[in-house]
Amino acid sequence: MDDDPATEILEATYRSLCRRGYADLTVEDIAAEADRSKALVHYYYDSKENLFTEFLEYLYERYTAHLASVAGETPRERLFSLFEAVLADEAATPGEEFRTAMLEVKAQAPYDEAIQANLARFDEYLFERLREIIAAGVESGDFRERVDPATAAEFLATTITGAQTRRVAVGYPTDRLYETMTRYADTHLLVAAAAEGSN
Amino acid sequence: MDDDPATEILEATYRSLCRRGYADLTVEDIAAEADRSKALVHYYYDSKENLFTEFLEYLYERYTAHLASVAGETPRERLFSLFEAVLADEAATPGEEFRTAMLEVKAQAPYDEAIQANLARFDEYLFERLREIIAAGVESGDFRERVDPATAAEFLATTITGAQTRRVAVGYPTDRLYETMTRYADTHLLVAAAAEGSN
Repeated sequence: MDDDPATEILEATYRSLCRRGYADLTVEDIAAEADRSKALVHYYYDSKENLFTEFLEYLYERYTAHLASVAGETPRERLFSLFEAVLADEAATPGEEFRTAMLEVKAQAPYDEAIQANLARFDEYLFERLREIIAAGVESGDFRERVDPATAAEFLATTITGAQTRRVAVGYPTDRLYETMTRYADTHLLVAAAAEGSN
Repeated sequence: MDDDPATEILEATYRSLCRRGYADLTVEDIAAEADRSKALVHYYYDSKENLFTEFLEYLYERYTAHLASVAGETPRERLFSLFEAVLADEAATPGEEFRTAMLEVKAQAPYDEAIQANLARFDEYLFERLREIIAAGVESGDFRERVDPATAAEFLATTITGAQTRRVAVGYPTDRLYETMTRYADTHLLVAAAAEGSN
């Protein structure tokens, strides 16, 4: 790896988090995972809290780069690519252990303002990405004129969050949730499908 | 209290869980909270795992009784009462600390089959309650004929789960999510609103 030590430590934090979960995460483990001394970790990050805040920042950069890259010819295709990116793209999105650890981090948020502020940024980014794709679809005439982009984006952001929680909590199959989301969009947002009037 | 000791211990588990979270929950704390000896707790529940499984069973009874009691003249009113019961009814639903602890329990589910099986029962009950209300609405002609109750119920169960997660993780206001849900139902499920063709 050509990464600098600071980035290597963040990558090691990722692996430690997957292995041990958030509650048991320690600077010692992260240092061992990075094959560095605990003193070196503290040289770059003065506390576990500071390291974890920087780690969430590092995740946020990866998350936004990933969601910004979703492509498609039409607003419908871009919306479905976004659903796939957050729900069904197993190769690109993090695995089971990481998703589980992130749900654990969400449960810590009420007790840690820095974590909650960071999670709010992920939440707002997803909402904004959905809103802009839907607004473009209404603008282009692909989506129904009466669709309010902010309302639809808020609804979909909430459903995506629920799909991620159900996947961890009850092992609900991701593919099925992806299908449910695309069916919603085809039935309720798209002009052509609207005429069919399904749920 | 006229409760038997076994039930008192479950009530003490509830209070301990709210106070300490799942990760730090111990039989010692629960015994202290119940003002009983640890030996007595072990007399009724032979392990922490067994106690917690029984606790989830006790919660499930309360949850199903609460959701079964939602009433209304029309399917629309019953659906909105259900949304309120799971999202907005602060007096009847558990508070912030309990919601946070339950999200923590969800993040434990992949590591504990008994917990995951229990959470799946809550998940299935919510789905089934939604499905039966929507099916009654389609049957009565209040909801659109082409609405598939199972698909709509799955979508709404996922959105409700997401609303609960966002409330804990990013402090998203419950009332706003309740409004989003009712607007969805009025726009997409109800016969009268369908003609207006909003999102």
